[in-house]
Amino acid sequence: MQKPSIPKGTRDFSPVEMAKRNYIFNTIREVYHLYGYQQIETPAMENLSTLMGKYGEEGDKLLFKILNSGDFLSGIPDEELTERNTNKLAARLCEKGLRYDLTVPFARFVVQHRNEIHFPFKRYQIQPVWRADRPQKGRYREFYQCDGDVVGSDSLMNEVELIQIMDEVFRRFGIRVAIKMNNRKILTGIAEIIGEAEKIVDITVAIDKLDKIGLEKVNEELRSKGLSEKAVEQLQPIILLNGSNQEKVNRLKEILAPSGTGLKGVEELQFILEKIEKTSLNATLELDLTLARGLNYYTGAIFEVKALDVQIGSITGGGRYDNLTGVFGMPGISGVGISFGADRIFDVLNQLELYPENALQTTQVLFVNFGEKEQDWLLPILREVRAAGIRTELYPEAIKMKKQMSYADAKQIPYVAIAGENEMTAGKLNLKNMITGEQTLVTTRELICLFH
Amino acid sequence: MQKPSIPKGTRDFSPVEMAKRNYIFNTIREVYHLYGYQQIETPAMENLSTLMGKYGEEGDKLLFKILNSGDFLSGIPDEELTERNTNKLAARLCEKGLRYDLTVPFARFVVQHRNEIHFPFKRYQIQPVWRADRPQKGRYREFYQCDGDVVGSDSLMNEVELIQIMDEVFRRFGIRVAIKMNNRKILTGIAEIIGEAEKIVDITVAIDKLDKIGLEKVNEELRSKGLSEKAVEQLQPIILLNGSNQEKVNRLKEILAPSGTGLKGVEELQFILEKIEKTSLNATLELDLTLARGLNYYTGAIFEVKALDVQIGSITGGGRYDNLTGVFGMPGISGVGISFGADRIFDVLNQLELYPENALQTTQVLFVNFGEKEQDWLLPILREVRAAGIRTELYPEAIKMKKQMSYADAKQIPYVAIAGENEMTAGKLNLKNMITGEQTLVTTRELICLFH
Repeated sequence: MQKPSIPKGTRDFSPVEMAKRNYIFNTIREVYHLYGYQQIETPAMENLSTLMGKYGEEGDKLLFKILNSGDFLSGIPDEELTERNTNKLAARLCEKGLRYDLTVPFARFVVQHRNEIHFPFKRYQIQPVWRADRPQKGRYREFYQCDGDVVGSDSLMNEVELIQIMDEVFRRFGIRVAIKMNNRKILTGIAEIIGEAEKIVDITVAIDKLDKIGLEKVNEELRSKGLSEKAVEQLQPIILLNGSNQEKVNRLKEILAPSGTGLKGVEELQFILEKIEKTSLNATLELDLTLARGLNYYTGAIFEVKALDVQIGSITGGGRYDNLTGVFGMPGISGVGISFGADRIFDVLNQLELYPENALQTTQVLFVNFGEKEQDWLLPILREVRAAGIRTELYPEAIKMKKQMSYADAKQIPYVAIAGENEMTAGKLNLKNMITGEQTLVTTRELICLFH
Repeated sequence: MQKPSIPKGTRDFSPVEMAKRNYIFNTIREVYHLYGYQQIETPAMENLSTLMGKYGEEGDKLLFKILNSGDFLSGIPDEELTERNTNKLAARLCEKGLRYDLTVPFARFVVQHRNEIHFPFKRYQIQPVWRADRPQKGRYREFYQCDGDVVGSDSLMNEVELIQIMDEVFRRFGIRVAIKMNNRKILTGIAEIIGEAEKIVDITVAIDKLDKIGLEKVNEELRSKGLSEKAVEQLQPIILLNGSNQEKVNRLKEILAPSGTGLKGVEELQFILEKIEKTSLNATLELDLTLARGLNYYTGAIFEVKALDVQIGSITGGGRYDNLTGVFGMPGISGVGISFGADRIFDVLNQLELYPENALQTTQVLFVNFGEKEQDWLLPILREVRAAGIRTELYPEAIKMKKQMSYADAKQIPYVAIAGENEMTAGKLNLKNMITGEQTLVTTRELICLFH
């Protein structure tokens, strides 16, 4: 018989991996709570009418579709089957699909429950999403997203708070990060003043390479994308923008003076920087004009978090968007949100070995089983120890002590309690420290105190 | 535009519902940890070859199948399409399906990772499952299961421990329960001694009605199911079995004397009852011969938990099974497990209003926003309060105070902190208790102490 397997691009999570993941999710969850964000969950399956057309043509192809139950061919004429138009046929065969991200289901949630929600609505959501992407290293067909959004408030204080949240999460993880910030309105302003509005993506991509390829090559790339000599020249002060955030802001005010939108963006940036100064941040906050993430989506602030000590893409991102719910017939709802990349954070914590010991520990004491008499003597003791909150196991069978010890080793249980004839007579437990090998005779009370 | 909706039989969970569900899952999780169970997760999608044939013909129909990505018609000739054999065609169109329960994926996990697992393996798993059942009150197409199993150990101490786990979980919830226990071997023994092995389901169903319809009608039902007069007569001492667990065990030993299997079952029961006596149980543990749950599946102990103060089906169940992994080519692995019914526990806790206040509380203090000056003054205070672990919000906009207050009410935030001109001069906060309406002037330190 063939060894069973799981679909490509999906994963099983072992106990150790789960402990690590729970540590990540719990940390993020606690920080969201600290700022008044509340959790929601939406179903794994959404109607395809909710999902289709929201992620572009490419996204539609990456949706996992669920075959209708029962007679899924009913109502489809033979001609339509043999015509083999897969898009058309898929729409007939399937009504439902798996959630592709948490944003569209959230927008659907807000519209569907608009009358129960009190705005501003601060929600977070930690759930898996599914994409029929080609699996490759670090890219999965099932992965978790950890989104936090505020909808129904235009206040930039929400942006300030989200920066604090990102900062606090990575402070708790012990990951040194830079939080990068930009503003879509500034990018629009730049495009406006050089008269190349439609080339803004090419421009940011080219500028982003400055450190790697140097000014000369950046300008070459800009020209190769069809920018006029004049536009390239006008871009020079922007490409070469450097110094502190405040210096950059001051320069941008001058450069963007002819663009109302651009100036609005600078003003927003400045407001956020000022407020953040009043709270002390652990991370560095950097104004980065090359930051463009999903340009068509964001309308104000854009965020991205980079780990400083590991070579990896952004580990968190987000920004402000307008009209989240317009596509579901509820216009005028603006929002701002972030999404933590749990899989990448997992990799960073692994690489830097930053998991705290107690997050990974499961059972604290294993009681060795010598047989029915000893086991019976231990039962009330186990009860007492567990009532004190100590995670405890009694080995279920009276097999060779060596085997029981190797079970403790495999599970990385730090203490083993041994109670044979002598210990029972003395009313004590022989407690072995599995790391040092040291053994001590203790009462149940003493054992409990050891863990408190 | 039509208001968006979700597929029938699925649910959105609001912040309050999520807080309740998290309370349930966290309680179960903590107790599993206390006994050394470790969490795993498996993918939502499994290969259909893993799932098909494991839940009977009916179960196969209830699997949600995922349409293959890309050209899902490739390799299927026209004849096969127009032949309209939906079962056959579904197998061609779909390779993957959504998980139907947690048991089969767990069996697959054990076989696939046999070389990494150290047995006995105590795992728990809390994940949603999907079934294309007809939705009705209390039955959903997506719902969570909370399974705990030990595999690779025949010791009855595992059964003892699982009873303790069920007891502790419901003690923590404050739900008064009866834990009912039976043993498949006893049922086999009964069928053996009356010579009606194949009628054991009919027999237990009939006996179960004793309280409701009385002995006369039970016997009538047994006869109507084709039991001989002699068999019905032989069943009388079993139907009328009553008294304490020990009295029942003693009677069963006599009745089942001719059946080796039956006596083995009684012996197992007696062992478990004896051990449980040495640990004090909160719930009542009742020997119940009418308990048969999924008879074909269990081979030893059978468990079920009933709430005493709410009319509802069983809220937890489980038992011992042999050969969990045989179907995947790894014979000889026995296990015992339980599954908490999260949706029903949710209903019971709601009905009895047993949710602890702190489990439902989100934000603890809302700071009113009077404008930029006040907001700036508050920023360092907010930082200090949050650093002390107090869940805090600053209303993001300086709108009318009444609206900010109604936000606090809607979110059931117990305290509102107000800082205007006077408070800022005094360096204090005006803290309003939203339940009593009482207001007190406090320093930041005093506010923090209030919550500690």
